[in-house]
Amino acid sequence: MTDNIFPLNANILDQLLQENRVNLKTISIRELGILINDFEKKSGVKFIRMEFGIPGLSPSRIGPDEEIRILKENIKLPATYPPFDGIPRLKKAITLFVEKFLNLEVYPENCIPTVGAMQGCLISMAVAGRRRKEANTILFLDPGFPVNKLQTKFLGLESESIDFYHYRGDDLLKEIERIFSSGRIGGLIWSNPNNPTWVCLKEEELEGIGKLATKYDVICIEDISYFGMDFRYDYSISSTPPFQPTVSKYTDNYFIVMSSSKMFSYAGQRVGFTVISPKLSKKKYPTLKKYSDTEIIGHAFVHGGIYPTTAGVPQGTQHALAAILEAVCKGEYDFLKKIHWYEEKAVKVKEIFLSNGFNLVYADDLGENIADGFYFTICWKNMTGDNLLYHILLFGLTGIPLSITGSTREGLRICVSLIEDTQIDELKNRVSNLKNYLTSNI
Amino acid sequence: MTDNIFPLNANILDQLLQENRVNLKTISIRELGILINDFEKKSGVKFIRMEFGIPGLSPSRIGPDEEIRILKENIKLPATYPPFDGIPRLKKAITLFVEKFLNLEVYPENCIPTVGAMQGCLISMAVAGRRRKEANTILFLDPGFPVNKLQTKFLGLESESIDFYHYRGDDLLKEIERIFSSGRIGGLIWSNPNNPTWVCLKEEELEGIGKLATKYDVICIEDISYFGMDFRYDYSISSTPPFQPTVSKYTDNYFIVMSSSKMFSYAGQRVGFTVISPKLSKKKYPTLKKYSDTEIIGHAFVHGGIYPTTAGVPQGTQHALAAILEAVCKGEYDFLKKIHWYEEKAVKVKEIFLSNGFNLVYADDLGENIADGFYFTICWKNMTGDNLLYHILLFGLTGIPLSITGSTREGLRICVSLIEDTQIDELKNRVSNLKNYLTSNI
Repeated sequence: MTDNIFPLNANILDQLLQENRVNLKTISIRELGILINDFEKKSGVKFIRMEFGIPGLSPSRIGPDEEIRILKENIKLPATYPPFDGIPRLKKAITLFVEKFLNLEVYPENCIPTVGAMQGCLISMAVAGRRRKEANTILFLDPGFPVNKLQTKFLGLESESIDFYHYRGDDLLKEIERIFSSGRIGGLIWSNPNNPTWVCLKEEELEGIGKLATKYDVICIEDISYFGMDFRYDYSISSTPPFQPTVSKYTDNYFIVMSSSKMFSYAGQRVGFTVISPKLSKKKYPTLKKYSDTEIIGHAFVHGGIYPTTAGVPQGTQHALAAILEAVCKGEYDFLKKIHWYEEKAVKVKEIFLSNGFNLVYADDLGENIADGFYFTICWKNMTGDNLLYHILLFGLTGIPLSITGSTREGLRICVSLIEDTQIDELKNRVSNLKNYLTSNI
Repeated sequence: MTDNIFPLNANILDQLLQENRVNLKTISIRELGILINDFEKKSGVKFIRMEFGIPGLSPSRIGPDEEIRILKENIKLPATYPPFDGIPRLKKAITLFVEKFLNLEVYPENCIPTVGAMQGCLISMAVAGRRRKEANTILFLDPGFPVNKLQTKFLGLESESIDFYHYRGDDLLKEIERIFSSGRIGGLIWSNPNNPTWVCLKEEELEGIGKLATKYDVICIEDISYFGMDFRYDYSISSTPPFQPTVSKYTDNYFIVMSSSKMFSYAGQRVGFTVISPKLSKKKYPTLKKYSDTEIIGHAFVHGGIYPTTAGVPQGTQHALAAILEAVCKGEYDFLKKIHWYEEKAVKVKEIFLSNGFNLVYADDLGENIADGFYFTICWKNMTGDNLLYHILLFGLTGIPLSITGSTREGLRICVSLIEDTQIDELKNRVSNLKNYLTSNI
């Protein structure tokens, strides 16, 4: 079937691009989603969606059932403001989870629920970038999650970037030190595994970063939204090595930002948490008072951050996340087993692209092959990312251009989370057709 | 009984103030709550709590039951990111509610769910104060909700203030125009009814404010969290005058911020909404691009505001609020009838203070008596607010000092929402004892 309908009519796509006033180099993920929906309607073809990192799995019933129980049994609860620093039950559950799965000892007062990891990243950057007047720049290990840069803009902070493509290992540390030594950097942010490349920082790199953060008084903002999804290692057994690598082993200057969206497929209820280093939490920076009513980091995060943005996290979703973490810590719910589904999918989808002449943009993970997980990156010869996106759209496929992730390289991010098993054959057909088209026409 | 135990031991209070490193002039509401909890424990006396604006009523079952239904029936929903601009069902319900109860015609695209009115105020101020480089000041009609000023700080904006005590009617408009004409004002924020004074702006004042906002291109941020709670008028009958007064009748430069916390006793689930003027929503300001990726107001609110702060509002709570608004619009749920409870309470509590020699700080509402509602303000002769607070604490009573609300006057805000009927006699006793004490000792 596909042979006849692809490529789709490029005039339609051109017209949609014009009508929506977007271009494929700078388009946001949500704008791209709207464009694709429109293109689906106009062409009558169902696309294989690989642009948006939506969990493809249903959540365990633990979360929803707990919300239901709480809303049934505690009739006053919806009327009661949540404590800004989170309900005690969830703070305790986070503390235990972090102990068992990150091998990290913190206290409930250091564990702050957030309205998604988004709020955690926002407030972490706000605090990190507002401690010293001259250190108002957030350094990104790129490519990265595009919205993090929108957050620095929202906060009126500056941003700077290092690309993993050029720097790993000692080179990465040298480059970080070169930039840190300017004194302009307040925070360093990265995700591990990395969205979009699935690069995973190694212990040696984290150790070096931690030492530099201490030396130059920079706060590490470590986003572990994809906890445990470096499937080359099994991080699923509590209190037993190997543990998910974390910079918190090597410095007291950290915020660890975590999400329930991917680990627990709970994206729709917007609940995550941030762990503040116990020592950092107590440190004072007089400049913070310009932006909050306190100079103490922990206080600035909660009373100067959570309070003025949302005044806390909904009661119901906090109980949901607490119940999930409790079940995980008791060994009653092996969430990582469930999300191996993404790994299996990545193996298949990656193979389809590679066997058809595409290459990985970020292929090497400090000497190892890149892991299989939620995302990977592809390119076609020396074609620009926006041009490649244009062409895969014509073949009913999607992805996001690396240009919006802060990458210095040309290519696309492919997300495997929404691809159904029943779509694999069709994906093969379309990618193969695309290859033939690119080979003979471009 | 109370004669023997009051005043409580001042040494304990002094020690707690020192230990908690707070002073009663600048203490935040939450810090005060902690102080009072500690004082209760150490003194063994249950306080009559009047400091924190927590809804005293249980919510209707409509909201929780809808969350339960959705979480039971739609097993994929918690895995699905909410649209940043809100779920279509809620946007439609808000549109209808605003039409029926504010007599205001807008479109679903102008109705944006938020994580509480807190997020609505934050983003409204961000957009209002970042449109023109020189107009980075938010003007407050004070006294007001202390956290709003914390929000301007969080955003790095400036703030300025006019006190209702000195300016109402034409004088208010003249003073606003004097300050607007400087060109420094990006947004004007107030709440109506006003927290803490329960002053309610009149149509003539709103008309004047609207005209000035248009003339000087200032955005009005109208916080109607206490919708309908000026109980001197009945705003409960849909599509029938009188309507809750709103500045949106008089200018296209408005954000209306609303909350489910007080109207629907849904504070714990953190869900509210903001209505953006349809005309304002489409306006462009190039300076906005410094803080978001767009120069269009509506886009800056959603993609440059909701997205980088929380990436949307939880799915469950959006359905709850939609169900509540739907029931209200169908006439199946008369929420204002329920919250008359606060009015009755205010009448009793106010009378107790006034009959014991206390006075209202803000007593006059442009020639009328101030309405009875959630809050009122009291003073004792020319005693400072922090000193008065110190003394009422010694009598097992609480309130917040007006100094933290931006008021130029000395006194306390009293919140009636948590006072039980069974506490009224005890309140009488304590206030009477306090009066005797103040009269003979101070």
